[in-house]
Amino acid sequence: MKKISLDLARQFNDKGMHRFLVHESPHFKIINFNLTAGQTFPVHSHDLDGELSITVIEGKGEFLGRDDSAMPAKEGDILISEIREPHGVRAATDMRILVTIAPPI
Amino acid sequence: MKKISLDLARQFNDKGMHRFLVHESPHFKIINFNLTAGQTFPVHSHDLDGELSITVIEGKGEFLGRDDSAMPAKEGDILISEIREPHGVRAATDMRILVTIAPPI
Repeated sequence: MKKISLDLARQFNDKGMHRFLVHESPHFKIINFNLTAGQTFPVHSHDLDGELSITVIEGKGEFLGRDDSAMPAKEGDILISEIREPHGVRAATDMRILVTIAPPI
Repeated sequence: MKKISLDLARQFNDKGMHRFLVHESPHFKIINFNLTAGQTFPVHSHDLDGELSITVIEGKGEFLGRDDSAMPAKEGDILISEIREPHGVRAATDMRILVTIAPPI
């Protein structure tokens, strides 16, 4: 049992997303990404079984998907995606997201 | 790919925790629990392999563990626990938590 405080990782980087690994185990991987306004987590996918969740913990922007699709994303919104489905995020404001990947990749 | 807005489940119940199933699949299960101030998610465990994360998305209270142990828990704090370790939550204020269990139970 362990506690992690995201406050410790409340950092942004103008040159690219700030990445903070919260936890990694054989069961899942949890990563906090902080995007400054205007930054994009590029759409990508991996040809592996599994799913991921992207929870917006602060700010707003868009969840991105296949063929330039976009859905509004704000604090409290959660995207569920297969790892093999194209997925990404675009930040309209400074935006903090929590990504959980199971199984971990 | 699907989006869930927790706003839709921003409900509290004086008689017990409000439970909103966000997602369930063979990979993980995600549940949002809302506790009113003073409510407790009783300490429990299951004799199964796997881990869970408990993310505080609003409010504050305590993460509970074995032998009445307690750790302060506030927005942005994440508890990682084995499913077989005793774990629980006590709400000091109205408190919203997001629980991810992998593999799902």
